[in-house]
Amino acid sequence: MESTMRRLISALFLLLLITVGSSASPTHWQKRVREPCKKLVLYFHDIIYNGHNAKNATSAIVGAPSWGNKTILAGQNHFGDVVVFDDPITLDNNLHSPPVGRAQGFYIYDKKEIFTSWFAFSFVFNSTQHKGSINFAGADPLMNKTRDISVIGGTGDFFMTRGVATLSTDAFEGEVYFRLRVDMNLYECW
Amino acid sequence: MESTMRRLISALFLLLLITVGSSASPTHWQKRVREPCKKLVLYFHDIIYNGHNAKNATSAIVGAPSWGNKTILAGQNHFGDVVVFDDPITLDNNLHSPPVGRAQGFYIYDKKEIFTSWFAFSFVFNSTQHKGSINFAGADPLMNKTRDISVIGGTGDFFMTRGVATLSTDAFEGEVYFRLRVDMNLYECW
Amino acid sequence: MESTMRRLISALFLLLLITVGSSASPTHWQKRVREPCKKLVLYFHDIIYNGHNAKNATSAIVGAPSWGNKTILAGQNHFGDVVVFDDPITLDNNLHSPPVGRAQGFYIYDKKEIFTSWFAFSFVFNSTQHKGSINFAGADPLMNKTRDISVIGGTGDFFMTRGVATLSTDAFEGEVYFRLRVDMNLYECW
Repeated sequence: MESTMRRLISALFLLLLITVGSSASPTHWQKRVREPCKKLVLYFHDIIYNGHNAKNATSAIVGAPSWGNKTILAGQNHFGDVVVFDDPITLDNNLHSPPVGRAQGFYIYDKKEIFTSWFAFSFVFNSTQHKGSINFAGADPLMNKTRDISVIGGTGDFFMTRGVATLSTDAFEGEVYFRLRVDMNLYECW
Repeated sequence: MESTMRRLISALFLLLLITVGSSASPTHWQKRVREPCKKLVLYFHDIIYNGHNAKNATSAIVGAPSWGNKTILAGQNHFGDVVVFDDPITLDNNLHSPPVGRAQGFYIYDKKEIFTSWFAFSFVFNSTQHKGSINFAGADPLMNKTRDISVIGGTGDFFMTRGVATLSTDAFEGEVYFRLRVDMNLYECW
Repeated sequence: MESTMRRLISALFLLLLITVGSSASPTHWQKRVREPCKKLVLYFHDIIYNGHNAKNATSAIVGAPSWGNKTILAGQNHFGDVVVFDDPITLDNNLHSPPVGRAQGFYIYDKKEIFTSWFAFSFVFNSTQHKGSINFAGADPLMNKTRDISVIGGTGDFFMTRGVATLSTDAFEGEVYFRLRVDMNLYECW
């Protein structure tokens, strides 16, 4: 009986050592599992003010380089244009679907040679499905089919969240309308 | 005696299993406790340049839509105005209290129908109480009594911090002065 | 023998309590070890458009206070100037080295009394060494030898990263060219 006990106790010690070892390793060295704790797909719709569409426009050019103006996107691939927006967010790709919130913030065009932009904005929700906000920032090289930006924080239902949002241009019409599809993968949920 | 031992050892095993189980689960699946590791309440004061207050102004309009200019906030609820600021931070709600740092960054007005804004800025401290900086971003629907934005990072005393800051308009005078109260709840402290 | 067993079992229980205690404490209370999981040093080069250098310029003034314009940085320590950039990133401090990516985003000058700025931008990589992007935000009091800003997120090789980037002005020529050295210390790696 005694040797059985000893073996049991040895096994217990081994388990303990493993346990103590794993919980003592500092969090940030852990290889974290890349599986989202929340997934969301939404669309938003941007209609740029061009001097003639005051009623429908959801965004406006507010900064421009010396060669630009405020009612038409500048030459050189719009380099330097700053656009402030308040765009409806919809569950599907229809501009006229009931919005579940507003995408609010700004983007800039930031390359002379090709179209590329940079976004900082929030999804502000106020619907039965979602309350609160999600904050985003990152480069949007819009000639690529998909582009990843960062989810840098959130409030309300999205308290303290972080993740990656994949943008894709779902549609565009000339230089006045575009629709972005946003596939959010949140990896930190509280 | 032997059966007592066995019961003890069974209990030990059970505890071990619980322990091993909980420490092996990947960090980001954990339901984290929503209790701040640090709390701070501060005020900052914004005096917008209007063409006549060069000496006192702490902020200036630097971008505007085509219907706006740089010395008065634009029509349509200031939609499209971009304001750069360097505002004093105080411990109480008195503009003339000794500042403990500067709130530096910008905000935009981003809705035509009502007043709402979007902020990206830093608290830059250099006082005996605090050294370092806290970085913020998020939507500020300023007609609401309180609004939550994200604390997206920090340096110095606030190294790597994250959290939520609740903004409330403590006072305003016309379109020239406003004072924001910032209740910071930090949930990640290093 | 029995008392030896009891002592062993007591010791086991003690260890268990310690273990359970430490792994049950919520992650965000942990004092995390401030050791980077990744370090990177890179340089980027900014050439501001001044009306005469269209070919070489990598950035342009796109917003300015009422006393400024778009081809020369404004008086009062450039307060209120907004600059959009698409700057080459190099491994060493040579403007003509092959770029490993582009620094894209904007900065503002935000103090009347001295030079100080605020940055929000991305490093967008597309080289054999690095794919993906790193997103930054924070105050840059550029008269200080070194300044810390936040790494607020990342994608691709830098998926979900966070950290601190230390900026230092490696060189500047008048008001047209500057080179920033960026020492990145990443503390969250996935």
